[in-house]
Formats: sequence, structure tokens, C-alpha cells
Amino acid sequence: MKKNKYIGVDLGGTKILTAAADEKGKIISEIKLPTETKLGMEKIKKNIFNSIYKVIEKGNLHKDEIRAIGVGSPGPLNTEKGIILNSSNLPIKNMPIIDFLENEFNISARLENDANTAALGENVFGAGKDAKNLLYITISTGIGGGIIINNNIYYGQSGNAGEIGHIIINPNGPKCGCGNNGCLEAYSSGTAIKNMAEKKLKNNNKTLIYDLFKKGDEISAEIVAKAARKEDKIALDIYSKAAYYLGIGLANLVNIFNPEMIILGGGVMKAKDLFLPQAKEVFREKALKAPADLVKIREAELGDQIGVKGAIAVAMQKVEG
Amino acid sequence: MKKNKYIGVDLGGTKILTAAADEKGKIISEIKLPTETKLGMEKIKKNIFNSIYKVIEKGNLHKDEIRAIGVGSPGPLNTEKGIILNSSNLPIKNMPIIDFLENEFNISARLENDANTAALGENVFGAGKDAKNLLYITISTGIGGGIIINNNIYYGQSGNAGEIGHIIINPNGPKCGCGNNGCLEAYSSGTAIKNMAEKKLKNNNKTLIYDLFKKGDEISAEIVAKAARKEDKIALDIYSKAAYYLGIGLANLVNIFNPEMIILGGGVMKAKDLFLPQAKEVFREKALKAPADLVKIREAELGDQIGVKGAIAVAMQKVEG
Repeated sequence: MKKNKYIGVDLGGTKILTAAADEKGKIISEIKLPTETKLGMEKIKKNIFNSIYKVIEKGNLHKDEIRAIGVGSPGPLNTEKGIILNSSNLPIKNMPIIDFLENEFNISARLENDANTAALGENVFGAGKDAKNLLYITISTGIGGGIIINNNIYYGQSGNAGEIGHIIINPNGPKCGCGNNGCLEAYSSGTAIKNMAEKKLKNNNKTLIYDLFKKGDEISAEIVAKAARKEDKIALDIYSKAAYYLGIGLANLVNIFNPEMIILGGGVMKAKDLFLPQAKEVFREKALKAPADLVKIREAELGDQIGVKGAIAVAMQKVEG
Repeated sequence: MKKNKYIGVDLGGTKILTAAADEKGKIISEIKLPTETKLGMEKIKKNIFNSIYKVIEKGNLHKDEIRAIGVGSPGPLNTEKGIILNSSNLPIKNMPIIDFLENEFNISARLENDANTAALGENVFGAGKDAKNLLYITISTGIGGGIIINNNIYYGQSGNAGEIGHIIINPNGPKCGCGNNGCLEAYSSGTAIKNMAEKKLKNNNKTLIYDLFKKGDEISAEIVAKAARKEDKIALDIYSKAAYYLGIGLANLVNIFNPEMIILGGGVMKAKDLFLPQAKEVFREKALKAPADLVKIREAELGDQIGVKGAIAVAMQKVEG
């Protein structure tokens, strides 16, 4: 029996998305299970195992065909030892997921944080297929990043490289979750957009955001986007501010890395029409000409599958590495 | 005859420093010649050739012992083709220095920009000997950088990576030479220190800097340092501002790269007592704890030989590559 299939596990706070793929990364079967975080670590582990058994069964595969398993998980992790340390999204503390998987399935496995997984996924299967050096930026609740150099994840000394959300762009700027002021994340993340909206409401500014809020929507980047699409000035200003600082962040990264490509993903990108054109303009204005002329700024292509396809790419690199 | 010696050429605006070294990088002979930039490109070329002939002779070497020549030069360069494009410090336009050298000496040669040369030099022979991933920052008239990943220079797509001086730290900050506002270079370079001093003089602030200026010193980072060492408040404030923003720059770089080491060099470091302790404090306060705890911030060790030793390291990598 040929060992030429791979399994990717995208472990999230609400769901586990698991898929089996052939050696070209073509998905053979896919399964989505609830993570059931409330039921604790043992149950999460069982659900992960279960998702793998099911994806093998659904794909009419045999366990012996599987060459490697890749797991993408929220951090912090010890990727070398394959341990999920203490995720803020999961009730997990020091879970040796790789040992668990290798013991259960007798298949070699590799753990990778979600930003790096997404970066590798886009590099192998998505928008970054043709690039050797690229940055992946996820604009979501926070802002994270994955750095690909020579088609490999760049880890830094202790696997903490790529904290792109915490580049300080204005030391007099708004407070960031990390304790500093004026990080990129404090301007351009979903949380930053939400915070800016809350401040406006507290100041009793007249805005559609308030009307949507009264109707029962929670304050979030999404309702600010809703209001902005109805030409609400305050909502538009909030996205414009996020765009301006994202543009500066992109310029900084391009000046440092001279990358072939920057790929943007994450939930906030669903409202990209509200900020991406301006962010690109600011970027062009601020970045050095030589690297700015060459870099391609692209949107992530893998959509909801970015985690699971990234995990498959992680499994494939486990074998190569 | 064993081909186990290397030659490094440090091409500068006023002098050419050339050395021959053995396979461990130990200097055998060294020679310093004026660049004679005013006499034009042909003369500069002759002086480079001459420095190499002399260093061979002085070291009692035979040309056939030389395995490779490395050249460090101010940019912009086309390193792949070995061409100095148009240096602002040299009257050179499109000088194919590598072709010139290979034709003259029949020895393979490699060209590298001065920041990368210095970074590699410190990595191979200096403060960064034990590190695989490091950043070298030169704080001089401007601020430049060299990025070493896995003991190799990281170039980016077109050799422009490492423009660390042009990270924007405050978009409302002072004007930078690049046209933007609030780049690291606009706060912490020799030019920035000079500009801050000039502004204070224009505003008629009472400061020792003015007294030194009247005595005939030009306004420069050095005379601000002189005044600061005599407890001049304005001069101390200027260095303190430079230190604060350098600390933020260091934090940004450590958050992005999670490097083993950052090495600081360049002329302004001669006044390091006036800014480095504070810069390190700000860095510790602003950087994420995990990468900040691990990184070593060191001073360059190669001093005036950083360029020529770096060029020797470049020659050695030419052979390995």
C-alpha cells in the first residue's frame, strides 16, 4: 500500500476541520466536528481523533496510506515538542498533541501555529504559489503574521517570529492589548475597529452604528462595516483610519523584507472594499520605490479552507523536512 | 600551490581598505589607499587593482593562492551582476567591478553592499559568531541594516531588504531624507541628531552646542555629544529622543524577527553612553516578553575593520555558495 496521502487538522475554538488529501494536495474527504471546548481537554482530544478516523473512512482510505498528519492550532505552542501550551481560545494546558496523535495512529505528525499554517497553505496551494519569499498577514480580532523565506516558515529563535500586529507605528497612539500604544493591531484589527466605534458611541456622536446597536447588533467591526456601506460618515472614518495605518504597516514590512508578495487574509478582509484600496495607496506613498514596485499585494485565496489546507501543507513539509 | 587565501576590499568614499586573510579569516596583510574619487572611475578602478597587488606582495603571497575576492561597497548595487550602479559617495555609474576584477586577476569575485558586508563580517568574525539569525544595524549618517538568516545574507526579492532606517515609527514625526515623516532614521541617525540641534539653535535655545559651534565646530552629532557630556540639557534631550525611538525600532524588529542577536555599529555608536542604556530600557518595556528575554543586543566588535573583514567573509561565502 502506497503511503501517499496526508491529513490536515485545523483546530479552532468552535470547530475542528479535518481533511485528507493526495500528494498534490487535492482534498479527498473533509469533515467538520464541534471542538466542544466546554467539555475539556480529554474530549477535545477525542474529537480530534474522531475527526481523523471519520475523514479516513469517508475517503475510503486505509490508515496505512497516510504519510503524515499536520495540525494547525492557536498558540502559544511549543512546535518543536508538539505541545499546545495554553491557548486563550481552548481550555488546553500543555497538551502534547503530537505524542497523542503519533501514539494513536502510528503516523508522524507536526504541529504549527495558525498564522504560520495559513502562510504555508497560501504559499503551497493559494495566492503565493509562485513566490519564494512572502508575508501572510491575518487581519482578524487581532493581527498576526507568518513569514515564509525560501518556501519555509521562518521561526526566529524560539518560534515567536512574525508578531506583525505589534509593530509600533505611533507610540502616542491608542492602547493595544499587549500593553503598548499605537501597535498596528491597535489601529487596524477587528478589535481596534470595534474600540473606535465604542468610543464614538460614548461621545454621543450621531452615527448609524448606534441605530444598529439599538436594534440588537453587538458592537463589532461588522456593524461598523454595515454602517459604512450606508455612507455613515463616522463608520467610514473609522475604516479610513484603519486603512491608513495598515498602509504604513505594509510599507514598513516591504522596506524590511523586500518580499515578492504580501497576502492578506482574516475575517476583517470581508470588508476589504472599505479599507484595502486606501491602504494600498498609503502603502505606495510611504514605501521605498524599488521594493514597492516589485511586491504583489494579494488577497488570501483559500478562504475557510486556509487552516485545513495549511495543515496539509504542514504535513507534507513534515515529510520533506 | 594551495588556493586557500582570500582578499577583502572595503571600498569607501575616501579610502580603499584591502586585506588578505587565511582560510580562518586571520589577516595576513593589509593596505590602505586613498580612493581618489575626484580623479574619476578609471582611477578608482586602478587604485582597487593596486591595493590588491600590494596586499599580495606585502603578504608574500602568490596570486595563485587567492581563492576569491570579496568587495563591500556603498549601494545601490546590482550584486547579482556585480555592478556598482550609482553610489552617492563615489563618482561611479554602472561600474562592472566584478568583471573588472575577474578579468584582471582571474580570481572569482563577489560584490556586496556595505550594510550586508558588515552584517556578515560580524556574523563570521565578530559579535555574532554564535548566532544563526541576527540583525546588524549601522547607526551612522543614516541608519542601515543587514539581515542574516541561517548564516546567510537575506536579500529579499531584489536585494533591497533590510531598509531598517525607513521603518515609520511615527507618521507625524520629523521629515526623513526619504520623503516620509517619522522614520527611525529621522529620529536616531547622526543626521537626525544634527537636525535636532540645528532646530534648537534656530529657536535661540541656550545651549553649549552653540558655544562649540561659535568656536568653529560644525554642527554634527559629535558636537551634540560633546555638549551632552558637559551636562548640557538640550544636548542630553536630543540624545534621549534618539534613544527613545531607537528603543522602539529595536522592539519592532525583535517582535518581527525573534532574532538571536541584534548588533549595533556605525559612527554614532561612539557616543553610545549617551543613548544605548535608555534605548535598551525602552526596548525592554515595549518588546514582547518572549522574544525580548532571549535576544542579545550587542555592539559590533570589528571596529574600523568591519568593512574589510566583512569583505573577506563575502569572499569566503562566494566559494561556499
